[in-house]
Amino acid sequence: MSVTFAKGFMAGTVASGLKSSGKLDVTVVQNTGPSDTAAAVFTSNRAKANPILWSMEAIKDGAARAVVLNSGGANCYTGAAGFQIAHKSAELVAEALSISAQDVLVCSTGLIGVQLDTSKLYPGIESACGQLSSDGGADSAAAIMTTDSVPKLSSVESAEGWRIGGMAKGAGMLAPALATMLVVITTDAVIKNADAHLRAATAISFDRLDSDGCTSTNDTVILMSSGSSGVLADPIKFQEALDQVCMDLARQLMKDAEGASHEIAIVVEGASSEADALEVGRAIARNNLFKTAIYGNDPNWGRILAAIGTTGAKFDPYDIDVEINGVRVSTKGGPDQDRSRVDLSKREVVIRVGLNAGTSAATILTNDLTKEYVIENSEYSS
Amino acid sequence: MSVTFAKGFMAGTVASGLKSSGKLDVTVVQNTGPSDTAAAVFTSNRAKANPILWSMEAIKDGAARAVVLNSGGANCYTGAAGFQIAHKSAELVAEALSISAQDVLVCSTGLIGVQLDTSKLYPGIESACGQLSSDGGADSAAAIMTTDSVPKLSSVESAEGWRIGGMAKGAGMLAPALATMLVVITTDAVIKNADAHLRAATAISFDRLDSDGCTSTNDTVILMSSGSSGVLADPIKFQEALDQVCMDLARQLMKDAEGASHEIAIVVEGASSEADALEVGRAIARNNLFKTAIYGNDPNWGRILAAIGTTGAKFDPYDIDVEINGVRVSTKGGPDQDRSRVDLSKREVVIRVGLNAGTSAATILTNDLTKEYVIENSEYSS
Repeated sequence: MSVTFAKGFMAGTVASGLKSSGKLDVTVVQNTGPSDTAAAVFTSNRAKANPILWSMEAIKDGAARAVVLNSGGANCYTGAAGFQIAHKSAELVAEALSISAQDVLVCSTGLIGVQLDTSKLYPGIESACGQLSSDGGADSAAAIMTTDSVPKLSSVESAEGWRIGGMAKGAGMLAPALATMLVVITTDAVIKNADAHLRAATAISFDRLDSDGCTSTNDTVILMSSGSSGVLADPIKFQEALDQVCMDLARQLMKDAEGASHEIAIVVEGASSEADALEVGRAIARNNLFKTAIYGNDPNWGRILAAIGTTGAKFDPYDIDVEINGVRVSTKGGPDQDRSRVDLSKREVVIRVGLNAGTSAATILTNDLTKEYVIENSEYSS
Repeated sequence: MSVTFAKGFMAGTVASGLKSSGKLDVTVVQNTGPSDTAAAVFTSNRAKANPILWSMEAIKDGAARAVVLNSGGANCYTGAAGFQIAHKSAELVAEALSISAQDVLVCSTGLIGVQLDTSKLYPGIESACGQLSSDGGADSAAAIMTTDSVPKLSSVESAEGWRIGGMAKGAGMLAPALATMLVVITTDAVIKNADAHLRAATAISFDRLDSDGCTSTNDTVILMSSGSSGVLADPIKFQEALDQVCMDLARQLMKDAEGASHEIAIVVEGASSEADALEVGRAIARNNLFKTAIYGNDPNWGRILAAIGTTGAKFDPYDIDVEINGVRVSTKGGPDQDRSRVDLSKREVVIRVGLNAGTSAATILTNDLTKEYVIENSEYSS
């Protein structure tokens, strides 16, 4: 599974000492080709970490031969010196693999505002390049973990003869400062328009994970194609498979939110546009009063309507229907079935909102807001 | 103090039984004139409670003779029957005071989604109208309390010979579902442009209280002028006095947030426009990661920069300065003085952000996000 499931990829991983625990913390993923097609999407936060500033330039030509990733430090708000470290990381990989530094992407995760210890990082990168192997995927996924409780892996094998594999880290969007989201997806399919495929897949997966609207400074999703299956993938089938891998990884990210007690899918239907459905879904997902109610197993539909009321979406505030776990608690903005009929004892919660303003729909995934979230995020200095 | 401090106002208050505690819960404030000038601002939430739907119509002519307010029920998401109750409440006051129902504003606060018990409310209103007195202000302020720990009163006496008095309820914007904000301000000054005065004052006071962006369905701020001082107020002096009363009440609202452990002023300077300064201030105020850090006494400037990065304001992400309680922790987006020098042990916190993009500034007031907020809001069904 992971990033070495598709042919044409190797990974090498070491414990460089950046993590005080002594666990794996530096990994390199190499695309041995023949193709070097790649694409990446980055955080929308305007305060971007140094590895992102580097990678945004490196990916502009749509090609990459390797990614180097480290945990144990985010290299964010570390100034020009931090950018030099990201640059040097790429150069070390390039030298070891005899490729151009412009073909090496860089990802970092961990504390922000502190400089990476290059006396550990640089030898670690060199050592990781010496460990590259076609079954290195599992260790690679372990090396990018921070507060993650489990590594996240996903893969698909197509009947057409190509594969997609991927890894992700992030302890749920519940706590995105703990949880820069890093995702590396590899494929041996021959593909055109890697960038369009990746953007389409992230738009309906990672982009719809929304806990508290706090976007990270380091979020990165990378797709690399080796083309080594020799099969030109059917674009529709490839998109479906890539969507599946991204959705699977996104769900794993959401489930690994230790502070959460509920996983919530907010399904907005009857919207006049998909953008409206997304705006409404996000407004609910970001509403602390709604999120604390779910934590308290309280099917508080009034807070859902109040959250919807803060948006600019097209709807009549007194023609909205709300269903919680299959119970229609509100019809046309007034009480319907008794809220006591809603069972919120399970982790999975489905909120269904009918805007009665059109035919578009979208689903946002989020978590509840718990005491544990507050404790975890108040004690962590990042 | 309160709403009967200015001449020409009476208030009558009773315990109707709407509050199960048996405390005061229905109050009527009457403007005995000679002027009936009035203005009101309402929640921006598109899901507006029935008393707001009534009052928005009633205030359109810029005149009001009375306000009837109840706690013990918000009359929100209660459908057409709920609107009839708001309408009937105004009619009962109108009959008792021999005025038009169109000159009676209605405010409600309490649980949403449940119908008010009219067998208690209606006799309560009639009884309150029978208790009207020129020293009824204190009881009136008590009757609108819900989870408030103290009544909120403020007043100003002008050397010109007029007075402003006001009352507010709301247990901080920290928990606005518990805390519909209701504010009634009275004055005996003769004023023109009541609406413009009120909007200017609320824009720099109540509108800049921002805890979690969860706007209430019932928020209302009312200004009534009796003109009984006979003094035409200097518009600039009146605005200053009204601003002062509104700022004072806003600070009292913020301080009465039981779940909070810090009161935070976010001062954004060097913005290219006031709108930019406000956008940046609100983004910080609504960022759960920042708010939990302050709760943990952690001067986490990285989270402030990450919050700023989510806005569309004009700035260079690597030319921002951040000061926490007087310590410059970040200069140009990199570390400056050691964060350990920041003392967050006191309740008052001042965050100062320099955007280095212009000369505009704005201050947003907020609270931290605490375990107690989560507990309070998860246990309250509204």
